[in-house]
Amino acid sequence: MALPSSKSFDNKLSLESRCRKTSLLETLNQHFDNEKIIFFGSGLPSPDLFPWKELKSKFYSKSVLNTSKPEAAIDDWATKTNSNPFVEVHSDAKALSAGLQYGNAGGRGDFLEFVKEHVKLFHELNYSDWGVAATAGTTQAWETILRIFCDRGDSILAETFSYPPSLSTAQSQGVHIHPVPMDENGVIPQKLQHMLENWQHQRKLPKLFYIIPTGQNPTGSTLSNERRKAIYKIAEEYDILIVEDEPYYFLQMESYIKAKSNRKRHDQLMSEYKRSLKKSFLSLDVSGRVIRLDSLSKILAPACRLGWIVASEKILLHYLNLQAVSIQAPSGFSQMMVLELFKRWGQDGYARWLMQLSGIYRNSRDVVCDALIERLPSGNFVQFTAPTAGMFFTIHINLSYLPHFDPELGAKTYEDRLYNKFLEDGVLLVPGSWFTCSPDVLYEEKKDTFQSCQIFFRGSFATVSFHQLEEGAKRIGDCLGKMLNTA
Amino acid sequence: MALPSSKSFDNKLSLESRCRKTSLLETLNQHFDNEKIIFFGSGLPSPDLFPWKELKSKFYSKSVLNTSKPEAAIDDWATKTNSNPFVEVHSDAKALSAGLQYGNAGGRGDFLEFVKEHVKLFHELNYSDWGVAATAGTTQAWETILRIFCDRGDSILAETFSYPPSLSTAQSQGVHIHPVPMDENGVIPQKLQHMLENWQHQRKLPKLFYIIPTGQNPTGSTLSNERRKAIYKIAEEYDILIVEDEPYYFLQMESYIKAKSNRKRHDQLMSEYKRSLKKSFLSLDVSGRVIRLDSLSKILAPACRLGWIVASEKILLHYLNLQAVSIQAPSGFSQMMVLELFKRWGQDGYARWLMQLSGIYRNSRDVVCDALIERLPSGNFVQFTAPTAGMFFTIHINLSYLPHFDPELGAKTYEDRLYNKFLEDGVLLVPGSWFTCSPDVLYEEKKDTFQSCQIFFRGSFATVSFHQLEEGAKRIGDCLGKMLNTA
Repeated sequence: MALPSSKSFDNKLSLESRCRKTSLLETLNQHFDNEKIIFFGSGLPSPDLFPWKELKSKFYSKSVLNTSKPEAAIDDWATKTNSNPFVEVHSDAKALSAGLQYGNAGGRGDFLEFVKEHVKLFHELNYSDWGVAATAGTTQAWETILRIFCDRGDSILAETFSYPPSLSTAQSQGVHIHPVPMDENGVIPQKLQHMLENWQHQRKLPKLFYIIPTGQNPTGSTLSNERRKAIYKIAEEYDILIVEDEPYYFLQMESYIKAKSNRKRHDQLMSEYKRSLKKSFLSLDVSGRVIRLDSLSKILAPACRLGWIVASEKILLHYLNLQAVSIQAPSGFSQMMVLELFKRWGQDGYARWLMQLSGIYRNSRDVVCDALIERLPSGNFVQFTAPTAGMFFTIHINLSYLPHFDPELGAKTYEDRLYNKFLEDGVLLVPGSWFTCSPDVLYEEKKDTFQSCQIFFRGSFATVSFHQLEEGAKRIGDCLGKMLNTA
Repeated sequence: MALPSSKSFDNKLSLESRCRKTSLLETLNQHFDNEKIIFFGSGLPSPDLFPWKELKSKFYSKSVLNTSKPEAAIDDWATKTNSNPFVEVHSDAKALSAGLQYGNAGGRGDFLEFVKEHVKLFHELNYSDWGVAATAGTTQAWETILRIFCDRGDSILAETFSYPPSLSTAQSQGVHIHPVPMDENGVIPQKLQHMLENWQHQRKLPKLFYIIPTGQNPTGSTLSNERRKAIYKIAEEYDILIVEDEPYYFLQMESYIKAKSNRKRHDQLMSEYKRSLKKSFLSLDVSGRVIRLDSLSKILAPACRLGWIVASEKILLHYLNLQAVSIQAPSGFSQMMVLELFKRWGQDGYARWLMQLSGIYRNSRDVVCDALIERLPSGNFVQFTAPTAGMFFTIHINLSYLPHFDPELGAKTYEDRLYNKFLEDGVLLVPGSWFTCSPDVLYEEKKDTFQSCQIFFRGSFATVSFHQLEEGAKRIGDCLGKMLNTA
């Protein structure tokens, strides 16, 4: 059965997007390869004048990806294999002539082909005219999406706690952010429904919902499939676009099991890994209202400044019209390097890399959770939920259990104090209020509610050694214990 | 004598720029290297998990740069040398750990150091607090500058004919472009003065002047030092920022000499080359009102998507605040590749590369000029001025010399016809009207003036072989000759 095509959301476009005209120069390209025509139309420099004549890159070989999941660092993993753990590939002058010339705004064709296949492997596409485009990373993609849809004065939704640069970009553009309540499992669909049902702002309904569904930054929470479905349904009902920012999607891991002896020790099967992944909003989408942003920053390396957007061709058109006059195209060096790696690894190899990576993150997650559970004061003063994706854990503190707690001082004051106490004791955690649209306001608004005495801190276990994870957990536990016990 | 510091132009900032808040997360960095603190604050992935372990690049060696200027293509140049024309450099895992991690929004420190030295070699800086920042190319930098200074409804100046994406970016942002009249030598200062003296638009005076001073796109014109000084003086008088977009600055060449025997055959000296370069607006700037954009697209390779901006630190601050939440930083692969090349070549080698490159472009310029002068119909129907920089030549046509010329049809109609006639005869030139803010309007406005019968076409000699340049010139000449002689 043929899939339906996507809906048009052109009615949501910003004034800027509606005003954008593409250059007539683009019509010249049709004549570029015509041998009968001498082409004086090009501003391209001659590839003969590119100084680079060869590039070589060495990276983990596919054989490494097929070995057992490492228990410790990846270096062990690599050296465990019998075969050469590295492969070296090279791009010759001809490849460089093409790869270093001006290129498509949305990325090289061969790169996009690989990405499309990858998308099909991990998502179900329920409409026909979807497509992909390369981005210079998710931050750039999000900024571009805001500009194509939002005018000054428009509204969007975001999780109450979210990635600060994403929020501040919207705010400086004059876009109002309405925070959607969340708990330890992410956005609460009922609260979202309630917000929209009772929308009494003078402003129009929000145009889009910016959401980090998996291993959320900063809360570490991951939305269940049920919540995703419920949220998508609400978005359909209120005609809101969903922008799912998913840098940690492939870093999903088995739930934390406290008893070490009960933890799975066998290698995960690919089928198992794929089945365990939460359904993306993209997979739930039937009308083309989901814009998915994938990043390579946590998967390969941040400085690639390369990722991709998956959306309907109708939306990609406007996206690319802006991208063409901002970054023009992602770096050709980055595209070449990543593509060479993708080609060597293949879809299967890349999928295995993702699975292995999630296994490595799981090991760190287990170490920090073991240590925190051992070290944190017992009782209701501190609450800790083990994350099931990404690189963040959070420690929630109920200030009302503190001796001499004075609600009048406000939670923010206590948060500041605790941040500094942690630092004095040699451990850095990031205060939760830093991840709100307006740090000072959030706790103020809640002054009279139960939550006024709740604060939290975000920790990342990504770059910290096992030993440091344990020592850090000890320092956190000791510091909180002292606070609780100072009469 | 100590240089004065720059003026503040914060009064010109856009609402967006004034609303931008930087993230508290940035304050964490001060603790990053403190060994006493276990740092749970980072969203950085572990460099152990970057799959790349080594990069190698092969490019022209410094010895190639020191050999005689090539008469033909660069391949001859390279093979002429006795020594190995290439050098291979490699970056090891340690270099990759740093180079592929999240980095400064404005680029790596070592890259910026090289660029600063380069800037000092070629420009005179007349105020103390200037700085540089890496960009993802000039298109991105210009889009960013527009956003930090201009609100919807603001005005800017641009040359009457200019680079279409630069114009359309401003237009879609709702910024009004006021075209400044130009002749074959670029912008006419007196006309600019006149425009501003008689400013009767309801709108405020323009905030900035976007200008391509050297080898201008599309006209190929280069501003004389006198005109530059006059324009800068006017900008000071009317408090207008100057954004000089200079992709072709280093492709300046000796004036065209018709008699081949009189052309210099000896190698140009570096001192001669440097002295021959027109004074940049940056070198004229005493108050920090000039923002200079340098591109590597025509110098090394377009897909680097890497360039730099030179401006006062006061302006760079706002520039980087936006760049940090759009592209985050230019590609790390691009920065590493270009930096390795810069390091191997050194300031002297890079300067020689620029000079050699301009020599190569000069050769093509001479070939196409020789051929056009031979082939174009004589008389006043066609006018041609040989460019002294960049990659563009223009052919101006006075339609009033055409038999049966009907002014009522409008110049645009004739331009369209001629574009298609050229194509039929196997040569592509780009119509001048494509480079105006609004192609249909420009000629309309001039309907009653002398210029209503003037049109022009832009040609690029950059990627065209000598043989094709000659054949193309013949086709242009024949086509125009036919038009003139059809009774």
